[in-house]
Amino acid sequence: MQLTRAADYGIRVMVYLAGLPKGSRVPIQTLASASAAPESFLSKVMQRLATSRLVNSHRGASGGFELALPAADITMLDVITAVEGPVALNACLPHGGGCDRRSFCAAHHVWAEAQARLAEVLDGATIERLAAESSQWMELAQIGGEG
Amino acid sequence: MQLTRAADYGIRVMVYLAGLPKGSRVPIQTLASASAAPESFLSKVMQRLATSRLVNSHRGASGGFELALPAADITMLDVITAVEGPVALNACLPHGGGCDRRSFCAAHHVWAEAQARLAEVLDGATIERLAAESSQWMELAQIGGEG
Repeated sequence: MQLTRAADYGIRVMVYLAGLPKGSRVPIQTLASASAAPESFLSKVMQRLATSRLVNSHRGASGGFELALPAADITMLDVITAVEGPVALNACLPHGGGCDRRSFCAAHHVWAEAQARLAEVLDGATIERLAAESSQWMELAQIGGEG
Repeated sequence: MQLTRAADYGIRVMVYLAGLPKGSRVPIQTLASASAAPESFLSKVMQRLATSRLVNSHRGASGGFELALPAADITMLDVITAVEGPVALNACLPHGGGCDRRSFCAAHHVWAEAQARLAEVLDGATIERLAAESSQWMELAQIGGEG
């Protein structure tokens, strides 16, 4: 029951992009370095983010990736869903998921509740807020390093 | 981000055992059939439940598995932890998990909160309660079938 590496990289990249001046376009090499992700693997992650219209991809000399929406309108849940598909803690959760035990499985509603709580937290965390917090911490670390 | 099959089977078995008369010992074949799990796979699950002292295993003619604790003292979280190890939604969560980004990663505390909420729900669901609910539903289904 763990987030995939792909979704973790996706969140890193989105937070990084949200911390840049508006309209910045960033090549995949820079994103790979900023998120400490292997470039070829990150390319697939970016493709999924683009398919879900969370980023735009531009070709050419001034090309690269940029956020497709304001960072305040993108949540961690959006990014995870884009990269991994809908969150489903148990295989039985996505609309019954083909589990024929559902009608008498008492664990089903516990899973549904656990998932709802989890999704609530992830959907409450916007990429904008994460980027603002990251940048504050980086500044504090720099001041600490200078002192 | 999904529960393993092993943990799902573990919960099914524990709920099944909790629904039997106190002190019942059940052979692995019966447990496999009740939980719709392959027997060889379930053997490994039962081994982990035994290692975590949630079930006792007895050899011999009257042998089999039984709950090692009252079902009211065992939660879904206990069973999942026994089978999968500590719940960690993201690799960064178990005590820092070796992630060197933690000091400036704003997502970290969101993960920690999401995990706490998830664990709260799973730890609030005792195997005793699940067994009672399952048995009620089975009775209702039987009445429905007879009607």
